[in-house]
Amino acid sequence: MLMEKCQALPAPPQLPDLRPVELEVHREKSNRNVSFPERLSIPVQAESERPQMSPIPAQGSAVDKRNHNLVYQLKAKPCGHCLVFNNVTFSRDSKLSTRNGSDVDCEKLERIFKAFSFNVLTKRDLKAQEMVVELQKLARQDHSALDCCVVVILSHGRQVSHIQFPGAICGTDGNLIPVEKIVNYFNGSNCPSLRGKPKLFFIQACGGDQKDRGFVVNYDAPGEEAPGGPLESDANPFQTPQGNLDQPDAVACLPTPSDILVSYSTFPGYVSWREESRGSWYVETLVNVLQQCAYAEDLLSMLVKVTDAVADRGIYKQVPGCFNFLRKKFFFMVH
Amino acid sequence: MLMEKCQALPAPPQLPDLRPVELEVHREKSNRNVSFPERLSIPVQAESERPQMSPIPAQGSAVDKRNHNLVYQLKAKPCGHCLVFNNVTFSRDSKLSTRNGSDVDCEKLERIFKAFSFNVLTKRDLKAQEMVVELQKLARQDHSALDCCVVVILSHGRQVSHIQFPGAICGTDGNLIPVEKIVNYFNGSNCPSLRGKPKLFFIQACGGDQKDRGFVVNYDAPGEEAPGGPLESDANPFQTPQGNLDQPDAVACLPTPSDILVSYSTFPGYVSWREESRGSWYVETLVNVLQQCAYAEDLLSMLVKVTDAVADRGIYKQVPGCFNFLRKKFFFMVH
Repeated sequence: MLMEKCQALPAPPQLPDLRPVELEVHREKSNRNVSFPERLSIPVQAESERPQMSPIPAQGSAVDKRNHNLVYQLKAKPCGHCLVFNNVTFSRDSKLSTRNGSDVDCEKLERIFKAFSFNVLTKRDLKAQEMVVELQKLARQDHSALDCCVVVILSHGRQVSHIQFPGAICGTDGNLIPVEKIVNYFNGSNCPSLRGKPKLFFIQACGGDQKDRGFVVNYDAPGEEAPGGPLESDANPFQTPQGNLDQPDAVACLPTPSDILVSYSTFPGYVSWREESRGSWYVETLVNVLQQCAYAEDLLSMLVKVTDAVADRGIYKQVPGCFNFLRKKFFFMVH
Repeated sequence: MLMEKCQALPAPPQLPDLRPVELEVHREKSNRNVSFPERLSIPVQAESERPQMSPIPAQGSAVDKRNHNLVYQLKAKPCGHCLVFNNVTFSRDSKLSTRNGSDVDCEKLERIFKAFSFNVLTKRDLKAQEMVVELQKLARQDHSALDCCVVVILSHGRQVSHIQFPGAICGTDGNLIPVEKIVNYFNGSNCPSLRGKPKLFFIQACGGDQKDRGFVVNYDAPGEEAPGGPLESDANPFQTPQGNLDQPDAVACLPTPSDILVSYSTFPGYVSWREESRGSWYVETLVNVLQQCAYAEDLLSMLVKVTDAVADRGIYKQVPGCFNFLRKKFFFMVH
């Protein structure tokens, strides 16, 4: 099955001893041996449900953007909402400095997301609770006719202890909103009309106060479940779940937190740099890469370039990164 | 500069109003206007240091694997060390169940990483402190002649509060090692001989105890710093750093946490599934995808496929994801 998802490229070189044990073999074997608990055993995907190779593989390009199994399909116009928080001036009590240059970032981002057919809404200088209200408002909208959703946050940030996504964002009152709270407004449980659709978060903020002097580098140096046995989890000692589990829905289900990508301007715990005249390193680079590569490259590949370009800069070092739970390649809609 | 990093593909469609303000323009403008603080101003990369387009762009492939600027170069043999922790049997005190099926995972991983020219070392059933000792031993080795390092962890896990990378791994005594501690043994500061080289972590363990029933999806629905202004951080109100900053090193420096990828079997907070006869969903799928796609595709693209395939499975849903701070595309060495 997975073979069908691979790129349309020349035949692979032989990997001795590595030919995969075909999933069919697993299935056959385990079917012979089927025992408890059948309720937990999802049949191998039917032939009709398996990803199909595009009948005309793209030539000269690694990914056929039309392939639904490999690429998120963006067809709606607008493609989706893009909510931009641009926090520039902070309350005196917060003791947070004015984020000079953030308007430069904001204007660039508005332009590019409009060009990508997003419905862009910018909110300037919101307190934490006001940001929460806007996020909830967006998450509660009906996104059924849309293909995607983007949230961009330009603000101060903090390193906070968390369990999923690192970091927290400052409202203009200095109060914090954890990134994981922001993300979870839009997950499969909380935002049903965005289920299965890509939800992208771009965060220009500090992950903390550490300033990285870097180090010198020597640049010359170089499935699916089948019956067969008890299913176990890797958490606590786990009791096989009982009850009437709804098998037929399994193939059409997606995990609650899927289809989420969070792109951070900086590694958790480190500072993120900004210039008054040119805006932040991260946004400047991100927008440049999007402008120049979005017609041909998927988002993850572009974010790797952003990381490389930002890591090349300055004295106090910054390395952007992303937390990726997308299930397909994401290409912006470029006309 | 960024333009040179894009794929060798046909000319982009025009993006009206979106042509990038060339970085050279910035430089020229800001050079005219150079003021305080010059110490913080890193010159735009010299022409000789800029990424060069491969003289013969690859045809029919999105990325020329030989391009040092876009792709990590793996030439050494062995390519690097691959340390596999396979925790199967846990102490009675820990109250953790035996991880049946983990040996299946382990054998598959050993085979594939050997085939990718890694020097594979497997450690079975280690207590937390013993795992730490092994990690430190590996991090303290001289990796100068190697191009990469891989750590694979097969164990029980926990959701823990953290500041960088989510999750913690159980030793066989039930004691925990935070993932961020594991990763940081190998960062630029702690493991100098791996600076600038890719460090890959594959973690098959629970992120927590949440079981995800999923939801029904309608499948039919669709740089560089230049002078010009004060440089600011997005953390606390920030004072421009003073002192003798070592400008010439800037271009040859990389941020401490760069070149790290952590691939998780599950979203933080969720369980990760395993079968006695076939091993874990994540490892089975990962190995299948690596076997079938590694000759042509980069690691991030393959991990997206792993996420998609695992998310398709079972009743209690699982979605693998990764935290990516790689700066280039990573291709395994396939012969």
